[in-house]
Amino acid sequence: MRQVVMHAPRDVRVEERPEPTIVEPTDAIIRLTATCICGSDLWPYRGADEVQDAVMGHEYVGVVEEVGSEVRDVKVGDFVVGSFWASDNTCEICRAGYQAYCVNRVPMGMLGTQAERARIPLADGTLVATPGMPDADLLPSFMAASDVLGTGWFAAVAAEAGPGKTVAVVGDGAVGLLAVLAAKELGAERIIAFSRHADRQALAREFGATDIVEERGDEGVARIKEMTGGLGAHSVVEAVGTQESMMQAIHSTRPGGHAGFVGVSHDVAIPGGELFMAGVHLHGGPAPVRRFLPDLVQRIWDREIDPGKVFDLTLPLGDAAEGYRAMDQREAIKVLLTV
Amino acid sequence: MRQVVMHAPRDVRVEERPEPTIVEPTDAIIRLTATCICGSDLWPYRGADEVQDAVMGHEYVGVVEEVGSEVRDVKVGDFVVGSFWASDNTCEICRAGYQAYCVNRVPMGMLGTQAERARIPLADGTLVATPGMPDADLLPSFMAASDVLGTGWFAAVAAEAGPGKTVAVVGDGAVGLLAVLAAKELGAERIIAFSRHADRQALAREFGATDIVEERGDEGVARIKEMTGGLGAHSVVEAVGTQESMMQAIHSTRPGGHAGFVGVSHDVAIPGGELFMAGVHLHGGPAPVRRFLPDLVQRIWDREIDPGKVFDLTLPLGDAAEGYRAMDQREAIKVLLTV
Repeated sequence: MRQVVMHAPRDVRVEERPEPTIVEPTDAIIRLTATCICGSDLWPYRGADEVQDAVMGHEYVGVVEEVGSEVRDVKVGDFVVGSFWASDNTCEICRAGYQAYCVNRVPMGMLGTQAERARIPLADGTLVATPGMPDADLLPSFMAASDVLGTGWFAAVAAEAGPGKTVAVVGDGAVGLLAVLAAKELGAERIIAFSRHADRQALAREFGATDIVEERGDEGVARIKEMTGGLGAHSVVEAVGTQESMMQAIHSTRPGGHAGFVGVSHDVAIPGGELFMAGVHLHGGPAPVRRFLPDLVQRIWDREIDPGKVFDLTLPLGDAAEGYRAMDQREAIKVLLTV
Repeated sequence: MRQVVMHAPRDVRVEERPEPTIVEPTDAIIRLTATCICGSDLWPYRGADEVQDAVMGHEYVGVVEEVGSEVRDVKVGDFVVGSFWASDNTCEICRAGYQAYCVNRVPMGMLGTQAERARIPLADGTLVATPGMPDADLLPSFMAASDVLGTGWFAAVAAEAGPGKTVAVVGDGAVGLLAVLAAKELGAERIIAFSRHADRQALAREFGATDIVEERGDEGVARIKEMTGGLGAHSVVEAVGTQESMMQAIHSTRPGGHAGFVGVSHDVAIPGGELFMAGVHLHGGPAPVRRFLPDLVQRIWDREIDPGKVFDLTLPLGDAAEGYRAMDQREAIKVLLTV
C-alpha cells in the first residue's frame, strides 16, 4: 500500500509499504477514507524534532475491513473515527476521562495513518462508529474530530469555557479555531480570538468569535485586560506551544480563572514565581479526544457543527509533500488528504 | 508600641514604633492577642529575599479597639481573625473566592502584625469575628487560621482532595501538616505525607496521614507510584516552593489529577514539555484564606479541629528574635508570639 514517510526534515515521500495485519486480537484494520496533516507534523518537518525515515500521521477516518478475535463492538463495514492515542477505554485513567494517558495506550503516530490502510490497536476502546455511512460533505468534519476538533474541545473544557464566561484563544491554527467553536458550543458569552490573518479571523468569527485581537505577547495581554475591566479573561486557551504563547495565555487569565493548554510545548519554561502570583488554574497536555468523540460524532452527524471548514486545502494522498509545504508556508490552515 | 523589625538577614529586633491610627474610613485598629512567624518570613531572614528595616508579620488574632466611620459589620470588642491579604470581599474576584487577588487588596505584611497593635484595611471584608471571646486554649488554633491553616486548606481544595481520593503532601512544615488535616476533613481516603522528621511524622499521623514516605525527589515519586498501582496520587499538595518539591508534586500526580501548590516559589521553572506530558491540573498561589475563614473559625469554635498543634514553641513578642532563630534551625515547626 502507499504510505507517507518523512525521511528527513522537508523530505516527505509517498512510498510502497507492507499492508498492515492484525497483530493483537484487539486490533482492527481500517481502509482510510481520508487522513490529514497535523500542525504537530510540522515540528519534525521544520527540524525542531528529530526525524529519520518515519511513517507519519495520527488522524484518520475510514471503514473497518477486518477485526481481531477479541473485538466486540466494532464491526467490519463500520465507518469509524478514532483518536491519535489508541486506548482501552476501560482502565482507571480512561474511566476518569484521560484516554490519552491510558495505561495501555499506543500512539497512532508510531503506526502512521497517512496511508491507505492502518492497524488500530484496542479497536473497541479507540474507535467510534458513525450512525451510518456519512454523506461525502461530512467527511472533513469527521476527519477534524479525530484530533483538531477533539483537541480544541478539550482545551475549551480545560479552560472551563461556559455560560457567562469570557474566553480568549491564543493561536489561530486549526486547533485554536476549533477551540473557538467549542467555546461557542459550550455557551461562552464572549469569545476573543488572537489572530493577525484576515482569513483566520473570518473563520474565527464564523465559529463564534465575538472579538479579534491582533496584538501579541504583553501587548495582547494588555488588550485583554482592557476588554475585561482590568481583570483578564475567565478562560484562556493556549494552542501554539511557545514560551510567548504560554505566558500570554497565563497572563491573559484572571486570578482564579482557567488556562487550558494544548500546544505541544517546545522549549517552554514557566517561571514558578509568575505562575504563583497569577493564581490561575492550568491544565493541558495531549487531548483525551476519545472522551469527547461520541458526543462530537453525534453533533457532526446531526449537522449542528461544521468543524471541517478548517480544511482549506484538499489533496490526494499522493501529493502529501505538497500538503506539508503548503501548511509549513502557512498557505493552508489544514490539509486534508483523500485516500 | 512594640513591633518586630528585620533590619537585615538574621537581624531581628523588637522596637518602639508609633501606634497605628485609622487612615481610611474602612479601617479597624486591633490590639493583638497573638501573632506568629511564618515560613515565608524565613526567606528574607536567610537572605533569599532582600530585606532592610522592614516591619514583619502578616498573621494576627486580636480584639477590635477602634473602627473607621464606614465599617459596618466589625464591632469594637469583637475577637477577630483575618487573612494576610486585606480584601474588600465584594469585588468580582473576591466573589469568585479569590480574595488574595482582590482588586483593592492590601498586603498585611507591609503593615506588620508582629506588633502590639495593627491597622487592618477593609475591615469588613478582611476580618471574621468569633462567636464570642474564645477560651485561651483555642488561641493557637485561631492563630493558625490566619494563614497556615487557611493556606493548607486552600492547597487541599486546589488539589481537589475529597472522598475516594489518595492525597500526597509534599512539605512537612506547618502548611503541609495542615494540608494533611484539611485533606482528612475533606474526606480523603488515603493521605500520604512526605516527611523525614519523627516529630513531624507523628503530627502528620495525628492530623490524619495514613502513610509516611521518607524518600524525596524522583525516589519519592517512585514510592507514590508504587503505592498507587503505578498511576500516581489523585491529589498532591506542594507546600515548599523549590524546584525539587514542585516537580515532585507534579510527577506524583496521576494524569488528570490535581496538584495544588502554595509554597512561595523561589527560582522554580516548570519545563513546559514535562507539564504537557504529565496531564495534571495545576493550581496555586497565595491562598485566598478569607474564602475559608468563616467555616474554619466555626470548626475551631466547635472544637472539631485542632490546627494550633503546629505551634510547638510559644514566646513573648519581646523574644521574637529567638523565635526566628528556632524556626530557621528547624528546632520549631512554628512559633507563636504572645502579645
